[in-house]
Amino acid sequence: MPQWLRQRALLTPDRIAMETVREQLSFKQLYARVRQAAAGLRDAGVRSGDPVASLQGNTLDCAVTVYALMLLGAVMVPLNTRLSPTELSGQIKQSGSRILVTDHDNAAAAEQAVTTMGCMIRDAAELAQTAALFDDQETEIELTDPCTIIFTSGTTGRPKGVVLTYGNHWWNANGSLINLGLQQSDTWLCCVPLFHVSGLSILMKSIIYGMPVYLMKKFNAVQVNQLLLSSKATHISVVASMLQRMSDGLGSGQAYPNTLRCILLGGGPVPASLLDRCLRLHMPIYQTYGMSETASQAATLPPEYMREKAGSAGKPLFPLQLQIATDGRRAAVHEPGEILIKGPTVFSHYLNNASATAAAMKNGWFHSGDIGYLDKDGFLFVLDRRKDLIISGGENIYPAEIESILHGCPGIARAGVIGIPDHKWGRVPVAFVCLKPGAAFSETKLIGACRAQLASYKVPRRIFVLDALPENAAHKLLRRKLYMYYEQLNQVK
Amino acid sequence: MPQWLRQRALLTPDRIAMETVREQLSFKQLYARVRQAAAGLRDAGVRSGDPVASLQGNTLDCAVTVYALMLLGAVMVPLNTRLSPTELSGQIKQSGSRILVTDHDNAAAAEQAVTTMGCMIRDAAELAQTAALFDDQETEIELTDPCTIIFTSGTTGRPKGVVLTYGNHWWNANGSLINLGLQQSDTWLCCVPLFHVSGLSILMKSIIYGMPVYLMKKFNAVQVNQLLLSSKATHISVVASMLQRMSDGLGSGQAYPNTLRCILLGGGPVPASLLDRCLRLHMPIYQTYGMSETASQAATLPPEYMREKAGSAGKPLFPLQLQIATDGRRAAVHEPGEILIKGPTVFSHYLNNASATAAAMKNGWFHSGDIGYLDKDGFLFVLDRRKDLIISGGENIYPAEIESILHGCPGIARAGVIGIPDHKWGRVPVAFVCLKPGAAFSETKLIGACRAQLASYKVPRRIFVLDALPENAAHKLLRRKLYMYYEQLNQVK
Repeated sequence: MPQWLRQRALLTPDRIAMETVREQLSFKQLYARVRQAAAGLRDAGVRSGDPVASLQGNTLDCAVTVYALMLLGAVMVPLNTRLSPTELSGQIKQSGSRILVTDHDNAAAAEQAVTTMGCMIRDAAELAQTAALFDDQETEIELTDPCTIIFTSGTTGRPKGVVLTYGNHWWNANGSLINLGLQQSDTWLCCVPLFHVSGLSILMKSIIYGMPVYLMKKFNAVQVNQLLLSSKATHISVVASMLQRMSDGLGSGQAYPNTLRCILLGGGPVPASLLDRCLRLHMPIYQTYGMSETASQAATLPPEYMREKAGSAGKPLFPLQLQIATDGRRAAVHEPGEILIKGPTVFSHYLNNASATAAAMKNGWFHSGDIGYLDKDGFLFVLDRRKDLIISGGENIYPAEIESILHGCPGIARAGVIGIPDHKWGRVPVAFVCLKPGAAFSETKLIGACRAQLASYKVPRRIFVLDALPENAAHKLLRRKLYMYYEQLNQVK
Repeated sequence: MPQWLRQRALLTPDRIAMETVREQLSFKQLYARVRQAAAGLRDAGVRSGDPVASLQGNTLDCAVTVYALMLLGAVMVPLNTRLSPTELSGQIKQSGSRILVTDHDNAAAAEQAVTTMGCMIRDAAELAQTAALFDDQETEIELTDPCTIIFTSGTTGRPKGVVLTYGNHWWNANGSLINLGLQQSDTWLCCVPLFHVSGLSILMKSIIYGMPVYLMKKFNAVQVNQLLLSSKATHISVVASMLQRMSDGLGSGQAYPNTLRCILLGGGPVPASLLDRCLRLHMPIYQTYGMSETASQAATLPPEYMREKAGSAGKPLFPLQLQIATDGRRAAVHEPGEILIKGPTVFSHYLNNASATAAAMKNGWFHSGDIGYLDKDGFLFVLDRRKDLIISGGENIYPAEIESILHGCPGIARAGVIGIPDHKWGRVPVAFVCLKPGAAFSETKLIGACRAQLASYKVPRRIFVLDALPENAAHKLLRRKLYMYYEQLNQVK
């Protein structure tokens, strides 16, 4: 296949490729800038196949870096800007990167991260000002070549480097295209991090579809609402907490115009009360299920099923197959088990981690570690991360179920549940909540509300209030931090 | 990948899959009928990998046969219903088919074709009434497996069997999707033969996109106009002569509604006067260039360039690359040469014809045998089939250019030009025309009109009138028959 960006610049040179609050680039202009950055990277010694780390915010320069590395055939290693210098060092070392591309905001962290290593730092903005243009006329894309190494977001355990090929990204973009359709007016608002697969997949879609991306430096509900209300975008990718803030920010009687075609909602379980509200506001919510290992969305629920199949993540993308496995067999309809995924978007391997790869990939099926079931019509319901499952006296407790109940209680902005060790039951649930402005907190009342709606073994033993719940850059709940809070509370006590 | 039709029936069971004047089937219903036909074919002895010939009109049963053979992993060999029994026998033999699926209208021709062979005949309608359902739950699609063998339409020389893989069809459907977009309301009107790649590619798109197809038994301009004027379809594939009849059939002041999103216009050069008329009527014409060997369209011109780039076939589909070659080098901008195509839609090989395959495929580039050039913006202009090129005194004459001029003359319905042997010049052009109803014919006037617009060596020496021009089932001009006419005229003289 031809280089994607080159081909796109050939096919639709004058279409808008990327827009930020400050700038607008056509595909021709983007391609020119990317060839400059590629020349700069080549001068810095980057060659085809080299891993190159990037520590950058959601800027045009970051997108240019992604595309430039693709032009060079190098392998992009996007790093999470929230990580500590030690964590960053670890990932850079693990990836084998000898060059780290960064930006002004992250320069200090980058410096700290590489102090003890032989890794050079390059500034993304300066690279894009190289006088020369990289000549890629003869290069092609091999779909089996590695394209990106994304370290899993680390809501559980030590990050693993997920190696995604060009083919993984291609098939994801195409599977999503078959699912969501494509119109000339489509524009995707990107306010998820470019260092996560959710953001990266938007960049891939842009050049494959020839679709403009509006890039936001940081998620901000007020700005997002302004953009959506003024029909500036037709698509947006969000996680539940972002959607909550967007929904809270809408005035009474205010609703998104129907130019907004798709709110792609991923990143884990969604509270039922939030879905209800979106339904009332006629939001075009596409609930999805996906992860780095499947190059972003693997299953999606179209809005027409939002009521009938509330809470479902829908059906697989066209090229993919789903299966629920339990005790080494296919689970029955409605029977929970591990979610397995097969198809051409499933990642190649975990970097330098053959045992993790072998544990996750069996007979072509990726074992996601997530728990869910299929209903009689083949709709997927994701119950929880398997690692988050609380086993209490032999019963399975899914934190998301309790969180959804708490979230529906008056005054509660967010909720997070973990299982803490218990002599009698093994583990018992404990909850953390943060409150809406001005709301009062009563542990007794909340526990009462849970008791009214849940089996007794699912009722949290304790409920604690926090100013904010710990979350990662994609606004996913970090349960391991809740464990740490709980331990601190315990020590204080 | 999962079986496409099974996956589609799982994802959108209740969407309309196929409609004819008599019947409407959802994907679930279609899948059930296809499983019946597959069971019938399996009972008849069809196994995975077997070539199976089909001699059928454009019926639902024919579409069911196509899908049933895919379910079985058998290789479909669609035969042109206009062929003589001898020609049919030859292709059945060449393909190695031991079973021929046919329908009522073609049963007699089928019988004649197989008299001397050990090939069984099965009726498509009866197959679809099998009581059992074929169980395909465990089968998957390998993109590298052969899916169809299409004999080239034979406007030049002896037909060759073009082996297309599942991957070729998949990439064509996806490349076209990126180009044309996809909306929930899309419906493709299929009035091109299902035994040509143009019709087959619509069947593939249907199950991959989840898009309804309205299937017409035979092209009929009045019916087509009725369907389009009543917003029954958003897309239609046509060749120039069909479009001409559709356009002639529109009353004055009548125009297609803007629910019609795409008229995909392929099958060779298009007269400028016809394009002009379509432009005036604001028809959404997408001129394309493609062939069996590229699994249908390879390049497409979007309507926004119809005026600026009149006569161009546009730019390649996203996964493809085009090149113009002359004297073993890349041609310069505007320099005519042979059109070469590279990419994942390019066919696997010619069946049992290694020399033809080797002649057509060099270094991954398919040598199309067609002549064209790229302009400075990368738009493809197809001049003619190389085999149709008339070399006259060292000058290249493209029949399409002369035909376009003649077509623009008053009273002329169609025109066809060939090069006849000439002692002095090697070859000189001679034209055949057919007239619009009631029009008068004056050879002198027509030659005068050509002289006014063409270099003298391009002016036809003679112009003959015919009741109709010879064309194949896809309504493409059959120039070799014009040669035969000319020889007959010569003998009479």
